[in-house]
Amino acid sequence: MGTSEVEAGTDPVPAAVEWAGDHIRYIEQRRLPGELVVAEARTIDELCEAISTLAIRGAPSLGGAGALGVALAAVLGAPLADAVDQIVATRPTAVNLAWGAHLAAAADDPVTRAIEIVDEIVADNRALGAHGATLVPPGSRVLTHCNAGGLACVAYGTALGVIRAAHEQGRAPSVWVDETRPLLQGARLTAWELDRLGIPATVIPDVAAASLMAAGEVDLVVVGADRIAANGDTANKVGTYAVAVLASHHGIPFYVAAPMSTVDPDTPTGAAIVIEERDPDEVHEFAGVRVTPAGVAARNPAFDVTPAALVSAWITEVGVHRDPPAG
Amino acid sequence: MGTSEVEAGTDPVPAAVEWAGDHIRYIEQRRLPGELVVAEARTIDELCEAISTLAIRGAPSLGGAGALGVALAAVLGAPLADAVDQIVATRPTAVNLAWGAHLAAAADDPVTRAIEIVDEIVADNRALGAHGATLVPPGSRVLTHCNAGGLACVAYGTALGVIRAAHEQGRAPSVWVDETRPLLQGARLTAWELDRLGIPATVIPDVAAASLMAAGEVDLVVVGADRIAANGDTANKVGTYAVAVLASHHGIPFYVAAPMSTVDPDTPTGAAIVIEERDPDEVHEFAGVRVTPAGVAARNPAFDVTPAALVSAWITEVGVHRDPPAG
Repeated sequence: MGTSEVEAGTDPVPAAVEWAGDHIRYIEQRRLPGELVVAEARTIDELCEAISTLAIRGAPSLGGAGALGVALAAVLGAPLADAVDQIVATRPTAVNLAWGAHLAAAADDPVTRAIEIVDEIVADNRALGAHGATLVPPGSRVLTHCNAGGLACVAYGTALGVIRAAHEQGRAPSVWVDETRPLLQGARLTAWELDRLGIPATVIPDVAAASLMAAGEVDLVVVGADRIAANGDTANKVGTYAVAVLASHHGIPFYVAAPMSTVDPDTPTGAAIVIEERDPDEVHEFAGVRVTPAGVAARNPAFDVTPAALVSAWITEVGVHRDPPAG
Repeated sequence: MGTSEVEAGTDPVPAAVEWAGDHIRYIEQRRLPGELVVAEARTIDELCEAISTLAIRGAPSLGGAGALGVALAAVLGAPLADAVDQIVATRPTAVNLAWGAHLAAAADDPVTRAIEIVDEIVADNRALGAHGATLVPPGSRVLTHCNAGGLACVAYGTALGVIRAAHEQGRAPSVWVDETRPLLQGARLTAWELDRLGIPATVIPDVAAASLMAAGEVDLVVVGADRIAANGDTANKVGTYAVAVLASHHGIPFYVAAPMSTVDPDTPTGAAIVIEERDPDEVHEFAGVRVTPAGVAARNPAFDVTPAALVSAWITEVGVHRDPPAG
């Protein structure tokens, strides 16, 4: 796959994944924040490699990549059903990937439909952001966890979309960025996006959020979501639940920002959500340096579940939901 | 200063600092968990270098090092007052360092007194551990934060002393070890001590403690303390307060283990405790690798304060205190 230093575009945060006439362009997220590199996928194999290595990551971005992968197969004259199977198999638990691929494959013109799907994802993010910005008083100090920005969501973002919309409306938010152990998506990606957007951001160790709240330095919390159960219980990056408990303890609003496609009516409560346990080496090692003694165990859950009772409101493209959104 | 690979001793965790006839031996804590290296300080300059570089760290260990430094000056025939001044200046905010140095310098025989002080620190830790072990039901899954083990406390430890005493009594505790960002004292030091002691330990990202509590996998929490105010408000490593809020939310006992010398009657409440803000590069970089984008700010408070109301009991060498211990 070819790569190139990105050129100045119209958006300070270029699209995480997009159609480029006869191939797919994407941001190589593993190179951030050191370098902004836009790479190209010209075959299904190249796209699948980018997805499986997390060069492309984030639920809505995977949805867009799945759709665009089918468009790529159509342009190449490859059998669409085979392309769908190959794409979906790269990260079988990522429902958005399958959703995007199947939606594009079912259309008469997969290329046109894939472009539409990607555009709709971004339009929904912008609508969501506009609704959410009404919850951000001027001068708010907003805390967020992990990365629910343009990188994760094709463009504009969900949780960061709310912050970005507030910024564009002149509400002058500033952001506490949880570094988000163990993979540091906050320190690496969210801080990078906010810096590009000119929104003041300060990275903190996850463990420092509590004392900032106690000191009155956090006005509200907004995070993304990986899945929202029918009763509103919300799965998101591990650590989100701790932030929700801390926000509740300090009387700070805790908002979840996610598109309606994240609501899963087939999951009655959070208890039904299986939590992916990732490689313990993500805890044992950092940048190739071993930090724990050999022989000691580690646990590495990727997500946790925040009970609906701790969520002040869910923000979707439809509006602000004080009760769990019905999918 | 000379260094040597440690020989098998009587304790699986050798003394963090000890007298060796005419010099001081200490564990080079910066080399852990990769290597256990026992180093020697034969001059006051060598000792001060070890203290200022955090090769020797932890409040009670610094108290022992301060006392032994005065003993070293006495053996070398150096003026004791000058030695005290030089030692205390290495880490001026470490009250234990000044306490140990002044106590030894005031004695007729500084060497004998310094050895007594070190022995008393360890005896207090063992007494504290025995009291605390009564709070650890058989088979308990104990969560701890940072390192309050033998490395920090000359030997045996305070929070880890409670766990160790429970282990020695056959109560078979197992331990969730918060990795403790940003300097990873849990992953590096606490996990190493527990492994040497044969106590089952599992390292977790700090952010995973909440969901383990929600799943019923944490029976109690025990942590150390850097200072306890007169009203019981407790300063300890940043992240301790978050654990206390989470424990309270889940109905899990939260214990503070520290010697009576940690209680400061001159500090009325936690509001009077000044929190050290450390170098933001501890957040920006890891093992020399930059993880945040250039130009983004970071905050790095070293400690936080847990209000007395969130502490189930304080454990000292005197006993278990359900009300704040009076210093």
